[in-house]
Amino acid sequence: MAKPSGRWPDLAGRIDGDTHILAVRVYHEDTDFTGLVYHGALVRFFERGRSDFVRLLGIGHSDLLAGNHGSEPAAFVVRHMEIDFLKPAGIGEVLEVATRCEEIGGATLTLLQEVMRDGVLVTRARVKIVLLSRAGKPVRIGKLIRGSLERFLNQES
Amino acid sequence: MAKPSGRWPDLAGRIDGDTHILAVRVYHEDTDFTGLVYHGALVRFFERGRSDFVRLLGIGHSDLLAGNHGSEPAAFVVRHMEIDFLKPAGIGEVLEVATRCEEIGGATLTLLQEVMRDGVLVTRARVKIVLLSRAGKPVRIGKLIRGSLERFLNQES
Amino acid sequence: MAKPSGRWPDLAGRIDGDTHILAVRVYHEDTDFTGLVYHGALVRFFERGRSDFVRLLGIGHSDLLAGNHGSEPAAFVVRHMEIDFLKPAGIGEVLEVATRCEEIGGATLTLLQEVMRDGVLVTRARVKIVLLSRAGKPVRIGKLIRGSLERFLNQES
Amino acid sequence: MAKPSGRWPDLAGRIDGDTHILAVRVYHEDTDFTGLVYHGALVRFFERGRSDFVRLLGIGHSDLLAGNHGSEPAAFVVRHMEIDFLKPAGIGEVLEVATRCEEIGGATLTLLQEVMRDGVLVTRARVKIVLLSRAGKPVRIGKLIRGSLERFLNQES
Repeated sequence: MAKPSGRWPDLAGRIDGDTHILAVRVYHEDTDFTGLVYHGALVRFFERGRSDFVRLLGIGHSDLLAGNHGSEPAAFVVRHMEIDFLKPAGIGEVLEVATRCEEIGGATLTLLQEVMRDGVLVTRARVKIVLLSRAGKPVRIGKLIRGSLERFLNQES
Repeated sequence: MAKPSGRWPDLAGRIDGDTHILAVRVYHEDTDFTGLVYHGALVRFFERGRSDFVRLLGIGHSDLLAGNHGSEPAAFVVRHMEIDFLKPAGIGEVLEVATRCEEIGGATLTLLQEVMRDGVLVTRARVKIVLLSRAGKPVRIGKLIRGSLERFLNQES
Repeated sequence: MAKPSGRWPDLAGRIDGDTHILAVRVYHEDTDFTGLVYHGALVRFFERGRSDFVRLLGIGHSDLLAGNHGSEPAAFVVRHMEIDFLKPAGIGEVLEVATRCEEIGGATLTLLQEVMRDGVLVTRARVKIVLLSRAGKPVRIGKLIRGSLERFLNQES
Repeated sequence: MAKPSGRWPDLAGRIDGDTHILAVRVYHEDTDFTGLVYHGALVRFFERGRSDFVRLLGIGHSDLLAGNHGSEPAAFVVRHMEIDFLKPAGIGEVLEVATRCEEIGGATLTLLQEVMRDGVLVTRARVKIVLLSRAGKPVRIGKLIRGSLERFLNQES
C-alpha cells in the first residue's frame, strides 16, 4: 500500500470524532445523460469512503490480502447494502462521504454512510461487509483489526 | 432511441412470462484486484436489466426525456435499493439479470431483480424507481406507460 | 471461463471474414452530463471487443492466467492506444465494435478497431497489446495462440 | 459549479509552474482481475486532471454549458488521444496526474499528460480536445478562456 503522502495530507480524508470524512469531486465519469450524478457513482463513492476509513485505521487492502493482520489472507467484501437516494448531485460539485461503524461482528462490519453536499444529505447507506478468505469462507476479524476499530469507536467518549 | 436491431435480436434480452432476462458478460471493467466481480458492477448490471426491461415495453429513455409518453419530460431515477451479494462471479462468465415488476405506484415502480449464473443465484435486489420531471418533482406515470406495464403484468395469468 | 452459451448465441459477437463484430448497447453508465457517450466508455467498448475476439479464437483470460496456452501464466495488457473520436453517440443506441488483427509480433498484437452506428464510423482505434507474465516481463506468444490467430488471419484469402 | 472548498484545499490539485498536478488514489473500482489498475481507469484519471486543470483556470463545465464564457453554450470534447501505458499501478497507491497545455488552436487545445507514482512515469498521453456547441459544431475558444490559458502559459517565463 502507498504510504500516506505528506504532499497530499487530505487524500485519504479525515477522522472527525467517530466519523471518517472523505471529499469527492463529481467528474464526467460520475454523471449520466440526465445531467446528474449516476446512482452507480454513489455506490463507488461509498466504497472509496470505506476504503479510506479502514486505511486511516491502518488496515490496508494489500496487507489483508497478504495475511499481515494476524489472520489468513482475506479481503473485505460487500454482503448487503441498502441505499436511499434522496437528492440529486451535479458535475463539478464537492461531495463529502461520511462513514461510521455501527456494529462489529465476528467476521462482519456494519457501516453507516452518508453523502453530503454543503451540509445537505444527498444519499444514505447501510453497508454490511464481511472478511472472506480466498476460498470464500468468512474469516474471524483478528485482534489487530478489532483493536483498531474498538479504539476508534471508544475515542468519542 | 435505437430501433431494435434485427441483426442482434437478443441484445435487449427476452421476456419470459412476467420476467425480463438479459445476458451480461463479465469483462475486465467489471472485476477488481480480488480477482472477482466488483460489487459496483452488479449495480450497473441491474440498471442495464431495468433499462432493457422498459425498452422492451416500449418506454425509451429518450422518449421519456422528450415527453413523448403522455407526460411532461421526465426520467426514471433510483430512489431506494437493497442488494444482497450472495456468491462471487468471475471474469468471462455469462450472467443473467432477471427483472420483474413487484408494484406500480403513482409515480414509482418497485422491481425485483436477480443475477443468476447457470441457475445459481449470485445477487438479489429490490429497487424502487421514481419518475421525476427535470425540476426533480415526481411525475404521475402516464396511461401509456401504465398500460404497457399492466398488460405485461397480466400476461402471465 | 464460461462456456459459450447456447441460450445467447451472439453474446460474444460474430466473426465476419477477418473481422470480429460485437454489438454493444449504450446504457446510463456509458453517458455523461453532456447527454452523450463518455469518451472513456468507448475505451471500455474497445476492450470488450478485444476480449470477445480472443474468446472466439479460443484464448480465455482465465486460461492465460492459469498458463493453459503453452506459455507461463500471463495476461494481455494494453501497451499503446491511439483513438480518434469522430462522431457522438447517445443513450439507448446500438453500436458495433469491429476488431481486426493488423500485426502479430513476438509478444505483441496490434489491433485495428472501429465503433460503428448504422454503418457510420463513430470512433477508430489502433491498440497494441502485449502478453505479460505475472512478473511484468513480455512473454512470447505461444504456438497455440499464434496458430489460432494465423488460421484466423488466413481464413480471408 | 461548486466553489473551491476551503475545507479541502487540494481537492482540485495544484498549479506548479506551467503544470497542473492532481493526486488520485487507486480504489477497487480502478483495478481489474489481473490485480493491477485497469487501463480504462487511467483514461478516467487523465480526464479528472484535465477537468481540474481548466477548473483552476476558472473555466467550469457548467459555465461553459450555460454560455457564460463569452461564447455560445459549449463543452470540451475529446477528439484524439494517444496513450503509452509504461508501468503497472496497484490498489491503494497514490498517483499524480500532471497536465500541461501544448497548443491552443482556434477551437482546440492539445494537452500533454503524465501519470506518475513516486516520481516514476506510469502512463503518458497526448490529448486533443475541441470546444463543441450543442449542435456538435466547433466553437471558437473565446477571449475569456484564451486569456486565462495564455496568462497561465506565460506565467512560467
